[in-house]
Amino acid sequence: MTADTVPSPVRLKAVAGPSQPDATPALERLYRGFERELLVPLWTEIGDLMPRHPRSKAAPHLWRWDRLVELAAEAGRIVPVGRGGERRAIALANPALGGRPFATPTLWAAIQYLMPGENAPEHRHTQHAFRFVVEGEGVWTVVNGDPVRMSRGDFLPQAGWNWHSHHNAASAPMAWIDGLDIPFSYYTESQFFEFGRERVSTAEQSTPERSRSEHLWGHPGLRPLSQPDSPVATPLLAYRWADTDKALADQLVLEAEGHAATLSPGHAAVRFTNPSNGRDVLPTIRTEMHRIRSGATTLPRREVGSSVYQVFEGSGKVRVGEHTWAVKRGDMFVVPSWQAFSAACDEGFPGSLDLFRFSDAPIFEALHAHRTVSTEFE
Amino acid sequence: MTADTVPSPVRLKAVAGPSQPDATPALERLYRGFERELLVPLWTEIGDLMPRHPRSKAAPHLWRWDRLVELAAEAGRIVPVGRGGERRAIALANPALGGRPFATPTLWAAIQYLMPGENAPEHRHTQHAFRFVVEGEGVWTVVNGDPVRMSRGDFLPQAGWNWHSHHNAASAPMAWIDGLDIPFSYYTESQFFEFGRERVSTAEQSTPERSRSEHLWGHPGLRPLSQPDSPVATPLLAYRWADTDKALADQLVLEAEGHAATLSPGHAAVRFTNPSNGRDVLPTIRTEMHRIRSGATTLPRREVGSSVYQVFEGSGKVRVGEHTWAVKRGDMFVVPSWQAFSAACDEGFPGSLDLFRFSDAPIFEALHAHRTVSTEFE
Amino acid sequence: MTADTVPSPVRLKAVAGPSQPDATPALERLYRGFERELLVPLWTEIGDLMPRHPRSKAAPHLWRWDRLVELAAEAGRIVPVGRGGERRAIALANPALGGRPFATPTLWAAIQYLMPGENAPEHRHTQHAFRFVVEGEGVWTVVNGDPVRMSRGDFLPQAGWNWHSHHNAASAPMAWIDGLDIPFSYYTESQFFEFGRERVSTAEQSTPERSRSEHLWGHPGLRPLSQPDSPVATPLLAYRWADTDKALADQLVLEAEGHAATLSPGHAAVRFTNPSNGRDVLPTIRTEMHRIRSGATTLPRREVGSSVYQVFEGSGKVRVGEHTWAVKRGDMFVVPSWQAFSAACDEGFPGSLDLFRFSDAPIFEALHAHRTVSTEFE
Amino acid sequence: MTADTVPSPVRLKAVAGPSQPDATPALERLYRGFERELLVPLWTEIGDLMPRHPRSKAAPHLWRWDRLVELAAEAGRIVPVGRGGERRAIALANPALGGRPFATPTLWAAIQYLMPGENAPEHRHTQHAFRFVVEGEGVWTVVNGDPVRMSRGDFLPQAGWNWHSHHNAASAPMAWIDGLDIPFSYYTESQFFEFGRERVSTAEQSTPERSRSEHLWGHPGLRPLSQPDSPVATPLLAYRWADTDKALADQLVLEAEGHAATLSPGHAAVRFTNPSNGRDVLPTIRTEMHRIRSGATTLPRREVGSSVYQVFEGSGKVRVGEHTWAVKRGDMFVVPSWQAFSAACDEGFPGSLDLFRFSDAPIFEALHAHRTVSTEFE
Repeated sequence: MTADTVPSPVRLKAVAGPSQPDATPALERLYRGFERELLVPLWTEIGDLMPRHPRSKAAPHLWRWDRLVELAAEAGRIVPVGRGGERRAIALANPALGGRPFATPTLWAAIQYLMPGENAPEHRHTQHAFRFVVEGEGVWTVVNGDPVRMSRGDFLPQAGWNWHSHHNAASAPMAWIDGLDIPFSYYTESQFFEFGRERVSTAEQSTPERSRSEHLWGHPGLRPLSQPDSPVATPLLAYRWADTDKALADQLVLEAEGHAATLSPGHAAVRFTNPSNGRDVLPTIRTEMHRIRSGATTLPRREVGSSVYQVFEGSGKVRVGEHTWAVKRGDMFVVPSWQAFSAACDEGFPGSLDLFRFSDAPIFEALHAHRTVSTEFE
Repeated sequence: MTADTVPSPVRLKAVAGPSQPDATPALERLYRGFERELLVPLWTEIGDLMPRHPRSKAAPHLWRWDRLVELAAEAGRIVPVGRGGERRAIALANPALGGRPFATPTLWAAIQYLMPGENAPEHRHTQHAFRFVVEGEGVWTVVNGDPVRMSRGDFLPQAGWNWHSHHNAASAPMAWIDGLDIPFSYYTESQFFEFGRERVSTAEQSTPERSRSEHLWGHPGLRPLSQPDSPVATPLLAYRWADTDKALADQLVLEAEGHAATLSPGHAAVRFTNPSNGRDVLPTIRTEMHRIRSGATTLPRREVGSSVYQVFEGSGKVRVGEHTWAVKRGDMFVVPSWQAFSAACDEGFPGSLDLFRFSDAPIFEALHAHRTVSTEFE
Repeated sequence: MTADTVPSPVRLKAVAGPSQPDATPALERLYRGFERELLVPLWTEIGDLMPRHPRSKAAPHLWRWDRLVELAAEAGRIVPVGRGGERRAIALANPALGGRPFATPTLWAAIQYLMPGENAPEHRHTQHAFRFVVEGEGVWTVVNGDPVRMSRGDFLPQAGWNWHSHHNAASAPMAWIDGLDIPFSYYTESQFFEFGRERVSTAEQSTPERSRSEHLWGHPGLRPLSQPDSPVATPLLAYRWADTDKALADQLVLEAEGHAATLSPGHAAVRFTNPSNGRDVLPTIRTEMHRIRSGATTLPRREVGSSVYQVFEGSGKVRVGEHTWAVKRGDMFVVPSWQAFSAACDEGFPGSLDLFRFSDAPIFEALHAHRTVSTEFE
Repeated sequence: MTADTVPSPVRLKAVAGPSQPDATPALERLYRGFERELLVPLWTEIGDLMPRHPRSKAAPHLWRWDRLVELAAEAGRIVPVGRGGERRAIALANPALGGRPFATPTLWAAIQYLMPGENAPEHRHTQHAFRFVVEGEGVWTVVNGDPVRMSRGDFLPQAGWNWHSHHNAASAPMAWIDGLDIPFSYYTESQFFEFGRERVSTAEQSTPERSRSEHLWGHPGLRPLSQPDSPVATPLLAYRWADTDKALADQLVLEAEGHAATLSPGHAAVRFTNPSNGRDVLPTIRTEMHRIRSGATTLPRREVGSSVYQVFEGSGKVRVGEHTWAVKRGDMFVVPSWQAFSAACDEGFPGSLDLFRFSDAPIFEALHAHRTVSTEFE
């Protein structure tokens, strides 16, 4: 393929503005030369490429959980699961990203659905992934031979290049959400994939209450001496809801006693971390659980990079840029880069608004490009 | 903007393949539901999103230096330089990336051109940048008030968020190349920009032989105690050709004496590094100089991530995937992710083939996603 | 003070050996000159200074818990606790270290004893410390205003330069062990100390079941977002026995199921770590709990650096260099640098041998001087 | 050896002071019990062990170069060099450290002397070392087969566990100083040693102007791609005086032009660093060169840890704690931990006072125990 034999994809037009050249015949000749040689001047593009601050191509958007589950259940009836398609996963497609299955420019978010007795076949890929369970139970994810139970509130990180499969050992279908860095690795062209066994062994299809990873790594501040270092991603394959719930409740208890423990009044939050080094569970994805007390509102913030939220429990209002939505259990929404965000739990709600969040912040932190600021809504 | 009021950007069609659902009316209804709700199934997309190894959307391509300089010189005659357009920079547009000014999915490469007496106004941006001078002299880049001379063979890194401007103090035009991570920060939506002064002070327009950064940091293995840490990017603003040339020559001398000093027989190489921590000069861009002795050929390799090369000196042949090009001084070409690459210096050439290279490898190393392998051309 | 006015502390004698000079009058004159000028030749000292491997000046030694408690209780009756003496702590003095209160060249180990109603006054020091409770309860340690309960099996790290005091809120005396890096900081001359308040506030004298640090940091893999980084030492002030016991039991359960989880058959072990970064709880002291199943023996090892052990529970035999001791609850012993060590739980013992260990390994790891090897006893 | 069969090394006496027990017969019995059981109470030792700030056991002291050289030359005449004694090195013995060959509690400093044609045999040890040449030339140090020239002003780091020998290829004797961490590794009991070949090969006895390490690593900011990482210690085996001198001169040039480049007016300084990571050349020893302009005085400082200085050139006055000494070329002196230090170059001296310094600061930085403050002399 050369510039001579195919039409150039470059199309240039003179534009008006400071330090822009006059639209003369000479300029036209110059621009045609640029097109022929596959060149584009900075001076016509700088406003788009180098804005004063991030202006996301992605849009804030809300997906309702009942609609997601309804369509996933219908897929459960008519779409098979097996080698080739690999997973019955249905991804959120940000309305401003051209119909691609990208929740944000960097993040994939999908609902996955498995019918009773079904198996999603083993494979591995360099994309990093996690599962989060907003409701249901009965599926085990087998990671490198270690079966991990999935129940409501559980968070299961899944670092790249580990073999994994899913099997539904229950008598009912089960849905959960998958988060991955598929768009990021797709855009940066850094992904590898391999098929595994068609079916894992019977022993690996067992349904233990706790995975081996939890036996080894699930004790606070205690490192098993027999295990190697895990610098890249967490060796702990499940973070159980009982622990997460207790950690959030403890912060609100301390706050009530007058101690500094919350991010702002009524806003408790924990990050899921690699117990071997305290860093994010995955190199490219940050995951957190936020609890907003009845009547409380989080401080509006802007942050470089994008987030996807799922309401785990409760009823409240969230603001994203110019949008305000009333949300409830299971609803998912997107916060694009540098758009202001806050969330509020309904006054008088008998409980709290619990939000699961994942974001691409570790990418920017690793590259020293992360920024976050307090802000206000107009 | 909601899914109800605008046509959905999602368009789904049943496809054939293993574990694909039959194209029934039920499936059609399901897919229409997906479109309405802004959802895309994994099973129709997995081949594109999760390939066995990176398959770059970008194409290998070669730009000839004489054509670049010719068009840049014409731009010098008819396009002004000043606030708004900011720079007379003309970017390589990869033919397979839709006419965008992106040499690769992550890297920007441009020729910049400044007429005698011209000033490119001061600004700063979070995008990381560098200049490399394949020929000419007479321009000084002023970085945070420190004027840095630009001469043939010099490499000038320019970390993000530092104020900088250029002024041509000579009586002839000067061209050089700019490399930046504009596509990466554009795609990940993490960029900030600010305008600086319209014109730097007279003192800053001086033309010293060596910058202050070189006085402080340009001595091998010697750290100035008065200076703060520079963990993010290099504090040394110029890497002079005399040093680079000597380092490459020294490797070939050692090789000739029978010592291990080169990457492979006849292939010397250095990386430009931050003297304060030995890491890449910029968080997102790796920069190297390679010297291939007359008659030698480098070992073919594949690497995650993309590179742009410029021939600094010599005459040789380069292979990129299925392409083979004869190259000479100033020519620039692109190696997309995971495509095989090697270079050879012409037998009998009285000198060596010197290649300047920049790549996005630090991004992948920071995220533990880097891979490189020896390979063969078919 | 000069070499002229006081007798020189240097005393040199000719020694026999390879490459040693003859004991001539000329050599005598030379050695007298060395003494006058405060000089010592390497050639007479090299065997001691540069051995083939570490030959510890310290000796293996065992202290019996019943004797320690008996003497501590007597001290409780006749030695006051208060400002000046600061603590009723009685340190193990290695028999080969000249009567100094040093268990090993780098580690301090003491029994501390507090009578009902007593207060050990607040102070802080740069020496790192911990408490470990082999029996009893009723004392709270107040760290920067956060009261931390001390009960059997609990481990309380105490990073340098934090204010701390102890108060016995029970009606019985309580003993526990203190570990510190006093000898190391004494020898390297790097220590600072400050007195605090004579008595902490009433609120700080409260006796909560869990400290604030546990509310915030005591949840596996969950980081409280409101808290700052703790790179130097652990922010978690108590590691409870219930967690430690469960972690050790879990390893033996996995081993029984055929999985790799123990260091060697029947030998489970955990390290107490900083949950914010997975590193040792203190920069200079490593702390671990080891469980040896009935009938099992650990693999003999040598390690650079020294350790102190306390038997937490069980009955067994330990070998240190040329020594073998039968040990039981509370007994403490020292393993000097590079001496072989193993431990065995008595066959038929209805339980396991649980050993608490602390060592100076982080010092050597930080300086890249750590080594450990498998070995055999002669 | 047990407490029963040998006299206890512990000797306790009641002392007076706040919170000290009365010297009653009961206390006497208690202290005899402590002695028998090898125990020492904290309350009698705390003042010595836990001072308010470091109070060094070492004394400031000055050794005159002419006396060092005179005695070393005499040793050259009557003490052989060879296997067993290993080196003709004569160490500074701090007058307050009991006649041991320790310049400070952690640092060894010696003058080494080699006669024409002599060879110091090959060995290796885990102790880290360096050579610094205040005058003379003609000796090559062979490090892992790479011969390194030694000339006035050159600094040669020698990381632990590398084979090395010295040979004098000139017709005159040569003296230089060795610095090592022998006292630190002796006290912490972490040292290993091995003998090498009796005589290195003829090729290794060559006398090249530049070592292979300099060919590879001696270019500012340029990393040879063929070489592995060197995280522990520097791969560059010689730092040449021409570079060091230029770096110091450059700082004073910038200062004269009004730029921030010196530590204080007239006080330039560089640290010798590992070019592969910018850290200290050795894990336990920091090395620096300081230049004080005629008439200038450095700002008095205290620092945790100890230093040894050698005057490289010039004439001036140094203050260490309560001492003030006039110093000239070659003189060596010790600054103990936390003692105030400053240096001044004589007014009107036609040049500068150049001081080579080494210290144990990396030990404290690695363990987060480093502190330094501005201070004043009384």
